[in-house]
Amino acid sequence: MRNMIDALQWRYATKVFDANKKLTAEQSDLLLEAVRLSPSSFGIQPWRVIVVTNPEIRERLRQAGYGQPQITDASHLIVFVTKKNLSDSDVDEFIALTANTRGVSASGLEGYGGMIKQSLSGKSEEKRIEWASRQAYVALGVLLAIAAHEGIDACPMEGFDPSAFDEILGLSEKGLTTCVVATVGFRSEADQTARFPKVRFSQEELIKKVE
Amino acid sequence: MRNMIDALQWRYATKVFDANKKLTAEQSDLLLEAVRLSPSSFGIQPWRVIVVTNPEIRERLRQAGYGQPQITDASHLIVFVTKKNLSDSDVDEFIALTANTRGVSASGLEGYGGMIKQSLSGKSEEKRIEWASRQAYVALGVLLAIAAHEGIDACPMEGFDPSAFDEILGLSEKGLTTCVVATVGFRSEADQTARFPKVRFSQEELIKKVE
Repeated sequence: MRNMIDALQWRYATKVFDANKKLTAEQSDLLLEAVRLSPSSFGIQPWRVIVVTNPEIRERLRQAGYGQPQITDASHLIVFVTKKNLSDSDVDEFIALTANTRGVSASGLEGYGGMIKQSLSGKSEEKRIEWASRQAYVALGVLLAIAAHEGIDACPMEGFDPSAFDEILGLSEKGLTTCVVATVGFRSEADQTARFPKVRFSQEELIKKVE
Repeated sequence: MRNMIDALQWRYATKVFDANKKLTAEQSDLLLEAVRLSPSSFGIQPWRVIVVTNPEIRERLRQAGYGQPQITDASHLIVFVTKKNLSDSDVDEFIALTANTRGVSASGLEGYGGMIKQSLSGKSEEKRIEWASRQAYVALGVLLAIAAHEGIDACPMEGFDPSAFDEILGLSEKGLTTCVVATVGFRSEADQTARFPKVRFSQEELIKKVE
């Protein structure tokens, strides 16, 4: 455990992972549990996560990711995928989970479910994917913060061919599509970018206070 | 400082804030610095943050946020806004910052800048806003994780009229538009939702391992 600002200063988008250093089961469990607990709009969690450790599949994904070595060399490859066609049945599933978790009747939550359905019905399929993607990016942010806190390196990645990822991971037939990727593990001593000063705009540039 | 899983279990989308409990300057500085340090694609940080503590403006924003009391009652209202028309000049500004931070010449980073420009030029204005929004959601995720770690309550909010927010905050003329909101502060004892069990899908439902 460490100061969170120090942790965020320490982290960087790791370009070269040490392929011999793997997360412990405890570490990967912690990261995945943090992802699971991440907040989402309405709490509906319109994303899923695929954790790829299989080397052959990672080699294929690397080809679909412009050859970037993190995809094969990091300890774990975490692929965030979103539901393509969020529908009333997803809402019903979520409402059933809520009723079950809270020990109340699903009928008592009809108003809440109806509100979510109404919100979804006003969006095109593309907009629903986009909205689901934003929720996945919240979970990505949580993952990156927690990884930093635990001294685990990570590289968030948007540079890949989503269609090829979908095909390799067999997502389309499940109504899913690839959203964003995080590779996690431990930096290699050979990663010179680890020593680059962090580039961030100043608070004056980024933050405006209306007092 | 606390275990991160406990922190994520402790947090919830706070519905009723204690209007009398304010963040200390140290706490708000920490949250805003965490937002500033949040990662973004290419590192370009295509978002800005407006921190509203002014009560009159918050009252107006509350009207534009379906009357939700968090908007006025939380200690701080943090509005994430994105650039509407990310262009080559934004890339140049970022490359100049990078060169300055790292003590190298901007011309040596021309290839990197060109790659970012090419990526942006392939996107419509709508797609650029969407891409910028995803980066803002990463920062939102980082904010929510760090707030939980520090024992600070928060409520992420999508339920507001973005055009009305843009107008009240004078964003359009600055080429900005409202993306997502986080209210932060401290839960009220009166918030019954604080005692509701957290609803999350199981790891079995959310996470698939390809080993």
